[in-house]
Amino acid sequence: MASASFDFAPLWAPSLPPPAAKWTGFPKYNFTGGNNDADHVPVDRLMAAATAVLAREGSTLATYGLESGPLGYRPLREFLAGKLKRTAGIACTADEILITSGSLQALDLVNGALLARGDTVLIEQESYQGALTRLARLGVNAVGIPLDRDGLRTDAVAAALDDLKRRGIRAKYIYTIPTVQNPTGTILSEQRRHELLRLSEQHHVPIFEDDCYADLIWDGRRPAALYAILALKTDAGSGALEQMVLAEFCASHFTDHVPRLTRGLRAKLETLMEALAEQFGTSAEFDDPKGGIFLWVKLPDAVDTQKLAQAALAAGVAINPGRDWSTQEAYGKSRLRLCFANPSTQAIREGVAVLADVCRREFGVPQRIANVERRARA
Amino acid sequence: MASASFDFAPLWAPSLPPPAAKWTGFPKYNFTGGNNDADHVPVDRLMAAATAVLAREGSTLATYGLESGPLGYRPLREFLAGKLKRTAGIACTADEILITSGSLQALDLVNGALLARGDTVLIEQESYQGALTRLARLGVNAVGIPLDRDGLRTDAVAAALDDLKRRGIRAKYIYTIPTVQNPTGTILSEQRRHELLRLSEQHHVPIFEDDCYADLIWDGRRPAALYAILALKTDAGSGALEQMVLAEFCASHFTDHVPRLTRGLRAKLETLMEALAEQFGTSAEFDDPKGGIFLWVKLPDAVDTQKLAQAALAAGVAINPGRDWSTQEAYGKSRLRLCFANPSTQAIREGVAVLADVCRREFGVPQRIANVERRARA
Repeated sequence: MASASFDFAPLWAPSLPPPAAKWTGFPKYNFTGGNNDADHVPVDRLMAAATAVLAREGSTLATYGLESGPLGYRPLREFLAGKLKRTAGIACTADEILITSGSLQALDLVNGALLARGDTVLIEQESYQGALTRLARLGVNAVGIPLDRDGLRTDAVAAALDDLKRRGIRAKYIYTIPTVQNPTGTILSEQRRHELLRLSEQHHVPIFEDDCYADLIWDGRRPAALYAILALKTDAGSGALEQMVLAEFCASHFTDHVPRLTRGLRAKLETLMEALAEQFGTSAEFDDPKGGIFLWVKLPDAVDTQKLAQAALAAGVAINPGRDWSTQEAYGKSRLRLCFANPSTQAIREGVAVLADVCRREFGVPQRIANVERRARA
Repeated sequence: MASASFDFAPLWAPSLPPPAAKWTGFPKYNFTGGNNDADHVPVDRLMAAATAVLAREGSTLATYGLESGPLGYRPLREFLAGKLKRTAGIACTADEILITSGSLQALDLVNGALLARGDTVLIEQESYQGALTRLARLGVNAVGIPLDRDGLRTDAVAAALDDLKRRGIRAKYIYTIPTVQNPTGTILSEQRRHELLRLSEQHHVPIFEDDCYADLIWDGRRPAALYAILALKTDAGSGALEQMVLAEFCASHFTDHVPRLTRGLRAKLETLMEALAEQFGTSAEFDDPKGGIFLWVKLPDAVDTQKLAQAALAAGVAINPGRDWSTQEAYGKSRLRLCFANPSTQAIREGVAVLADVCRREFGVPQRIANVERRARA
């Protein structure tokens, strides 16, 4: 009944992104994305949580917002208020929390409230691709601030803010992922947190704190959060069933689940670092991240990791090129991000070996295995 | 650690909507929104579906997109492809379906692909508030097309398209809810569907078909869909657990659940119409909707339903004023939309009685019960 083809070309809005590539399944060795370890999904407990909460409250699914209104399922917000106080030192009420459909929706909401084309923000020079692409699409100037082993360089933040002030520009926010930074895995020191807050007040620039991986720290200890919150959500609520099941599960099991997961993740990180040391030797530089699911790696300058990614994909290995995770192309050009949570231990070892072969073939590094200098463990 | 107050006033983006009102719980008699009947939520079967799918595939929750990629959980898309073919005559593959976080996200995606500020679209004069407010916020001209008992007036569509052509304007789409229209409950006739498609091809204007309530038809029979589809979703996927449970449930139970739900809804509609006839007499005009969860009512011209809504809320009755569901304020001024699915049968009767009292107090109509002329049943 519908016409077989309709030409949409004259109708598209301006400045659309290119069409998405068709998904062709998972590569054999998948080091991309923020996926986690399938072995650690607490399936039995999720089943029990789903059964319990549906039996008790399932009929409330008839109503948008359940019986909780537009901020999200109340028991989930209450769990979070308690958890944030306990782990991050954030004192807030359940009604100061908004449940969103993923952190990307939260980014969109904050950006929607604060940003207009031509605005300026400060962002870690190496940061979350999702945040970087959104700023680019919004036409916002993202001033990249370097990081070191203790996270965001607050001296560089101070210099950037002074420079903007001289030019009559007020940044709309400082976006930071201070606790298990993505992609570097660093943790912003307490001293720098205080310094960042001081700069925020002095220059009247709010801090947009993203605490995505803050629960996944090897030693389980984290500094208090910087914290800030905002909202203008125009949908009819985030997934209701998921909020109910999550709240039910977390109320009983969050505090034992997280340490167990974290131990498993640490073990996989060790496997990845050993494999890189064995296969790449001194060609691969990285610091031990303090937690999380990612390792941020620097290869020799001769290596273009975007080209490496294309060649590796043909061999079944998927990696995230550093260019997509940096405010400056040149900085990210020889870097790559590897997610170690999702692939199995064996896949990690094999995948890294294949990656080394591809890299050698394309760029001449690392040298052959017998000649690989062993990287001294940090 | 964070400063006690931070002045955001100088930082807000331009043209923000006003802050949302704080949610204060449900009114005693809630006729607003698209909520459904709590008694018809198939709780036991949802529990069984959740248990089964988690046991079988729960560990895939570790991966964004499960094992299905970015279009959404494959078994859900496969169920939908089969269901759309069977019920709506739509021939499409699972890979031509994108699962979104509610229909509002779908609206946002289509609008994002096609619309720029200053564009023009055609829309039913009485339509979905969510669609109307989005178009207003986007700065798009929404040309309202009248409806009658057979839905969208295609002669008026033809006239509007000719008029736009004379003015050198091409509409970006014709947005229609042809099968159980929101708010009127009408169904676009087959003849008009063919006519609309012909106009679409002639003027090269696509049809944006919204089939939200098309499954909830009293006699279970519906005309084939008009159908069209598009996507540029930048989040990490819609709620995974919900898609899994929904697919599991629907595979076994969709075809018996829907007729049962529909019978219950029809009974509630009868209750509402009887209550309106009893309390409002000829002051309340409405046509029998062919299905769905809403009744669209016209009160005498002297009644301003936005003021009525405010007064009624104070008395515990919530209604949707027609102004929010019309392209023209004047047209919607004395109309209101009532959702009959969510309140109980008793709440429907009591709520309508309270509403009539409030209306009489504020506007002098309807006359007192003893004097109410009985409305002839259509």
